[in-house]
Amino acid sequence: MKEIFAHIDAHMEEYIEDLKCLCRQPSISAQKVGLTEMAELCVQMMRAYGLEARLVSIPGGPPGVYGERKGKSPKTLLCYNHYDVQPPEPLELWDSPPFEPIIRDGKLFGRGAVDNKGAFMSRLAAIKAYLDLYGELPVSVKLFLEGEEEVGSPNLPPFLKAHRDLLVADACIWPGQVNWEHQPQITLGLKGILYVELEVRGANQDIHSGSATYIVNPAWRLVWALNTLKDVNENVLIEGYYEHMRAPTEAELEAVHRMPSEEEKIKEELGISDFLLGLSGFDLRIRDLFSPTCTICGIWGGYTGPGSKTVLPSVARAKIDFRLVPDMDPTDILAKLRRHLDKHGFSDVSITPRTSMGRRAWRTPLDHPFVQTVVQAAREAYGTEPVVLPTINGSGAMHLFGESLGVPIASAGVRYPGSQIHAPNEHVRLDDFVLGIKHIAAIMHKMA
Amino acid sequence: MKEIFAHIDAHMEEYIEDLKCLCRQPSISAQKVGLTEMAELCVQMMRAYGLEARLVSIPGGPPGVYGERKGKSPKTLLCYNHYDVQPPEPLELWDSPPFEPIIRDGKLFGRGAVDNKGAFMSRLAAIKAYLDLYGELPVSVKLFLEGEEEVGSPNLPPFLKAHRDLLVADACIWPGQVNWEHQPQITLGLKGILYVELEVRGANQDIHSGSATYIVNPAWRLVWALNTLKDVNENVLIEGYYEHMRAPTEAELEAVHRMPSEEEKIKEELGISDFLLGLSGFDLRIRDLFSPTCTICGIWGGYTGPGSKTVLPSVARAKIDFRLVPDMDPTDILAKLRRHLDKHGFSDVSITPRTSMGRRAWRTPLDHPFVQTVVQAAREAYGTEPVVLPTINGSGAMHLFGESLGVPIASAGVRYPGSQIHAPNEHVRLDDFVLGIKHIAAIMHKMA
Repeated sequence: MKEIFAHIDAHMEEYIEDLKCLCRQPSISAQKVGLTEMAELCVQMMRAYGLEARLVSIPGGPPGVYGERKGKSPKTLLCYNHYDVQPPEPLELWDSPPFEPIIRDGKLFGRGAVDNKGAFMSRLAAIKAYLDLYGELPVSVKLFLEGEEEVGSPNLPPFLKAHRDLLVADACIWPGQVNWEHQPQITLGLKGILYVELEVRGANQDIHSGSATYIVNPAWRLVWALNTLKDVNENVLIEGYYEHMRAPTEAELEAVHRMPSEEEKIKEELGISDFLLGLSGFDLRIRDLFSPTCTICGIWGGYTGPGSKTVLPSVARAKIDFRLVPDMDPTDILAKLRRHLDKHGFSDVSITPRTSMGRRAWRTPLDHPFVQTVVQAAREAYGTEPVVLPTINGSGAMHLFGESLGVPIASAGVRYPGSQIHAPNEHVRLDDFVLGIKHIAAIMHKMA
Repeated sequence: MKEIFAHIDAHMEEYIEDLKCLCRQPSISAQKVGLTEMAELCVQMMRAYGLEARLVSIPGGPPGVYGERKGKSPKTLLCYNHYDVQPPEPLELWDSPPFEPIIRDGKLFGRGAVDNKGAFMSRLAAIKAYLDLYGELPVSVKLFLEGEEEVGSPNLPPFLKAHRDLLVADACIWPGQVNWEHQPQITLGLKGILYVELEVRGANQDIHSGSATYIVNPAWRLVWALNTLKDVNENVLIEGYYEHMRAPTEAELEAVHRMPSEEEKIKEELGISDFLLGLSGFDLRIRDLFSPTCTICGIWGGYTGPGSKTVLPSVARAKIDFRLVPDMDPTDILAKLRRHLDKHGFSDVSITPRTSMGRRAWRTPLDHPFVQTVVQAAREAYGTEPVVLPTINGSGAMHLFGESLGVPIASAGVRYPGSQIHAPNEHVRLDDFVLGIKHIAAIMHKMA
């Protein structure tokens, strides 16, 4: 592995330039901006890195991108990534424009620098390093990117069912991260998600707030409805919400025990003095990984500009996400939410689900041999003991691949907890980018 | 009066042109836009209409405008108006630009067309009609305009205390309105107001919503805090909120009994099928005029753009107004709100009062002789029986004038319930504008 690691080190400038090229292209799925352009750019980049690549049509959505290359061993490694990014707003909080990638202090800043263009680029770079040095890959690889991850992959499930043969592999690598201490985290699971927009309508226009004595205020209706969903102790009050929640196994709890604490670093980074409910240590980590959530992602109604305006709003809305654990089903939770609101007198609150209902949680068993392959590769690439996580608190389409293809899935990646993904000033540390490339190279080697 | 009414009819085009001129000048106090320019324009307009006029300095705020003219009788009539307007947002709901006044279907559309430039113009027109016809006024007049009414007149109280001699009069005319049936409403009182902005802060930036398991969400904190302020039956739960509330007198209840119902018209206009709590008739009117409120005028936090974004907000805010009845004191209510939030565990919710704390409610006694003067003048100008209202549900600086100057105050005006004040497509019906001018002319005549 020394030779390939040295080759990677020697060619970093080239990989970084190409990552910047990917980051320059906006690809905002929530706003349908630049998606086809981005997909085409990914095809070009795959070809330049030695893959046979093409767009694949995903009915109802922007195209997917597929690339492959046969390798020496009969084993096949599938890499999942996505080329879409979160909206860059609020723009005024970025220190440099989100789609003008720039390096400062050993970090590459730009929307998508880490989530998920940086991760994608690390796969390409590892492949190219093998091809440059040896002219062939140790294993066959398949790379697949979708363009709707950030809006819940609504069109992916039927595509995966129809293209099982295209993507079938022995194992799958998911985008991953290192922790504050540069230890790689090997993640075996993701949470599911249900994302809804709630809306209450009143008068057909904002009116003078003097009339609040006799005109229904949608903002109050929304507040009261939301209040019935969760109490101040963070208990979700929707009837049956926790019904199908799978408890962690002994092995999973054990893995969580071995996780290092990053609490002080997180507090410093976010400028907070305490965690929710005074949580810390093992309790915090258990809750983080194995509890579902109910989160107000956005709320708005009435006059929100400067100064005072005495109006009674016509409409009030909230965007809510529920992060789900196995075996909670988004469709079931959506139905329970409707029943809950109706039962509590809030049939005037409309619910619009904003993502696929099929985004369930997923966990690869801790004892699968592929997990050991990824762990050993991490030791070699990073020179340190990796942290194995049964799941993380984020969501993704992992379950779609796990369920459709029947493959074990583990993460390897270039993100760190300070990467500010989904936030202003998203960035990848260049150190993490190098190590992420080496980790993929080592995984291909160990797998063969 | 026939002669003067005919003169007014004959000169309406001129008055309308000058009102359009006033409406073309933006004067948004909440956004500090165009206030001095507007004040200067008012001085010019007063001079053109036969008054001695000048700017008066109101320390801390934009200038006031004062104009006067001696009349035949020793009586003096003071007219209060304001030259500032509400913000025009949301702009996309206006059928024509807010500061480009235009006549459609016998209505003049534009921000301020009725609130309060139309009302001001009606005073000027009545004065000019007398001067054009007879060369003198039946009574002395004083016109005073402020430029901060829409943000709570924060700098007016010390000004009024210091300039009692300037403004002292025998009676005061306030901006008023007609009802859906073209009946003039003579309003003797206004509610008070307390306007606050609530804010909760969490992490120093919007973060990935996966962390909702252990990071405090300010939007939830705000929802829970708001929920403690008022229940779904509209009871304000702040301890002592209703403590100093003055009950209506028998005479006031009697006046409310005589009010016509405008419920069907309001429902049609606002596109609603029911009123709050199923209210109607006398109960609705009593609640409207004699109950204080607690209204979410605006609420916002997190991602409020199109599509889905899975963030945990850094900040959440709400703008709340409390409409107060006599003898509730805004300063007292603010202190009670703070105590309430602290007591319920919401010391993390900050409160910023956005208006003067001195805006209390006011009611002129129903049996004051000036009320009869205004009623009789209305009969003559409108040819119909006016409706006498002990108060309306809106707020203003009425109490400052009533308390400082010791004068009776009654309204006369050009607004109607469909004028959409504080909302898009604000407009004055030209019929109401003519009648409003005639009413002022008749008041001057009767008072003399």
